[in-house]
Amino acid sequence: MKNFDINEDPHRRFNPLINEWVLVSPHRAKRPWQGQNETIATEALPKYDPTCYLCPGNVRANGLNNPNYESSFVFENDFAAMKQDEIIFEEDIKHTFFKAKPEQGISRVVCFSPRHDLTLPEMEIDGIENIIRTWQKEYTDLGNIKYINHVQIFENKGSVMGCSNPHPHGQIWAQSSLPTQVEKTQNSLKSYFDKNNRTLLEDYLQAELKSGERIVIENDHFVALVPFWAIWPYETMIVSKRALNKITDFTAEEVNAFATILKQLTIKYDNLFSTSFPYSSGIHQAPTDGLDHPEWHFHMHFYPPLLRSATVKKFMVGYEMLGESQRDITPEKSAEILRQQPDVHYKSAGK
Amino acid sequence: MKNFDINEDPHRRFNPLINEWVLVSPHRAKRPWQGQNETIATEALPKYDPTCYLCPGNVRANGLNNPNYESSFVFENDFAAMKQDEIIFEEDIKHTFFKAKPEQGISRVVCFSPRHDLTLPEMEIDGIENIIRTWQKEYTDLGNIKYINHVQIFENKGSVMGCSNPHPHGQIWAQSSLPTQVEKTQNSLKSYFDKNNRTLLEDYLQAELKSGERIVIENDHFVALVPFWAIWPYETMIVSKRALNKITDFTAEEVNAFATILKQLTIKYDNLFSTSFPYSSGIHQAPTDGLDHPEWHFHMHFYPPLLRSATVKKFMVGYEMLGESQRDITPEKSAEILRQQPDVHYKSAGK
Ligand SMILES: O=P(O)(O)O[C@H]1O[C@H](CO)[C@@H](O)[C@H](O)[C@H]1O
Ligand SMILES: O=P(O)(O)O[C@H]1O[C@H](CO)[C@@H](O)[C@H](O)[C@H]1O
Repeated sequence: MKNFDINEDPHRRFNPLINEWVLVSPHRAKRPWQGQNETIATEALPKYDPTCYLCPGNVRANGLNNPNYESSFVFENDFAAMKQDEIIFEEDIKHTFFKAKPEQGISRVVCFSPRHDLTLPEMEIDGIENIIRTWQKEYTDLGNIKYINHVQIFENKGSVMGCSNPHPHGQIWAQSSLPTQVEKTQNSLKSYFDKNNRTLLEDYLQAELKSGERIVIENDHFVALVPFWAIWPYETMIVSKRALNKITDFTAEEVNAFATILKQLTIKYDNLFSTSFPYSSGIHQAPTDGLDHPEWHFHMHFYPPLLRSATVKKFMVGYEMLGESQRDITPEKSAEILRQQPDVHYKSAGK
Repeated sequence: MKNFDINEDPHRRFNPLINEWVLVSPHRAKRPWQGQNETIATEALPKYDPTCYLCPGNVRANGLNNPNYESSFVFENDFAAMKQDEIIFEEDIKHTFFKAKPEQGISRVVCFSPRHDLTLPEMEIDGIENIIRTWQKEYTDLGNIKYINHVQIFENKGSVMGCSNPHPHGQIWAQSSLPTQVEKTQNSLKSYFDKNNRTLLEDYLQAELKSGERIVIENDHFVALVPFWAIWPYETMIVSKRALNKITDFTAEEVNAFATILKQLTIKYDNLFSTSFPYSSGIHQAPTDGLDHPEWHFHMHFYPPLLRSATVKKFMVGYEMLGESQRDITPEKSAEILRQQPDVHYKSAGK
């Protein structure tokens, strides 16, 4: 019998944002890997690619030409997962097991800049500020549509994350319902706020700043950290210091601070394995249902798949799908490794 | 405005097993794919591979030799995610946000047979019966250990599912806590049983058999179907007709019927894209906590990643991680496609 050592012993941690546990196996980081390796694109991309349907001036799948855009550029997704059509629907309450409801929504694509070759960490701060202002505008415009109650802003980066075009871009899926993960988060945030009259993330951030162990980057308005309950090896979350409900609450200073932390975090990511670091990221914030949401606290999740190198990822498979998420390296160790990464992008280091 | 057509219009479906929704986008199956292709192993495997650490007689990572086993073979995982050590732990209730608990557990590997080249669909029925009896024995033996309250039996098949050795095998992770997904399922099963005095899956199965639309295979004791709320393109579930709590409740006839449906289902999977079909599968059944669990109803999930072909999978990424699971093809269509697959394995067809 020995005393519990969170850095060495297998344990479970609790995620209060979605009320779920994660299995942590610190000792397992040492096992050898004989499985699948990911392929990575190593060729440098051109600034403009005449065959890319996202580059300025080129033709998209629907036959339309992109404008010669100069900053970010937004268009409706030609293969949207939802449609704007209003559907007549009478709920059949006899169906205990076959419960289905039509869903209305809009999907948009946000090209980050005209440059085919510039990912977030390689962009200038004012270019990133520009993306943030585009997100603000989309959140407002889409949120103002009567039937849109939620606006999900996200990015799939890298082919390993299902991204089919390397031209840096994100997506926005806006819809009438609260998606499952957002609803779970909202329930937790709300019950915490109702009890404490402060947001859950306000208090969590205080506890994290006091501990310091999982902080990756801090500036005047935002903190990037590895959550205590992170499931992906290098998962992080950017949290605003003020309890902001949504991206449109940012001051000009906060827009700048958010752009800065986005650049810094993604530079550290790229430097970790000297590769264009793949991830899915996305913003969780107040829904656009017209109600007050004092419980909501703006945050952005980063879910990167890589575990050991540019080509070896963590597989969330059998046990993880049937039982619960499992991680090998501890969040504290991951935070330390990320913190130690240089602040200059590896491609421009030594230039 | 048009009337809701579940086969054509975007909609959400409800999963009563875990209380979550899934977004279904039938029209989206048509979008072109320009993204990542998986690599597939096409070489035939030898019956015995001298370099395989799972083949009979060979040496494992820990230096031990496998016996010259003749049916299935079970050993402790050399790189287990949990350990059997008892850990002294005093819960620190001051930690609102840093909630962690040590977890005790055992991981085992189950080699399906001595044959390096025989996956489930290619095995004889009595070989598969043998695996089922091994699962029964492990569920009993592990479940009898005082601190083990849950036994998760699963298989990761194919390198795309993180499987690092092609020698057909599954795993068992037994532990002191109920894993997150199992606990969610148990809560749903229990509240249904308390209200109706029948298991949720008993009644769901009746509704599915009546409808017929999502049934893939039916025999005297088991049904393989695409759940109404399936998230993976060709996800299926095998459900027992009797409301059995656990695998040790099977009669000899049920062992045979389960072996038969396992073989038939995996043959259809292989035939779908003429490839050794990758998936993660696993059994959900009563925990081994010593309590009565009349609410539990034995079932086995299959989560296969492929969408369009042997090399194009569905990516559960940005929207799916941040919002909710999304599928393109409808469960009804998938069931129809699976149902139509021949019952003879493509490799032995025409022989
Ligand atoms: O135990 P294996 O086969 O080495 O590992 C595989 O299955 C495990 C259980 O689902 C996962 O945790 C690993 O990420 C995966 O690579
Ligand atoms: O919309 P894309 O980039 O074509 O597609 C990608 O992102 C979507 C949203 O996360 C996913 O549903 C797809 O599986 C993925 O391939």
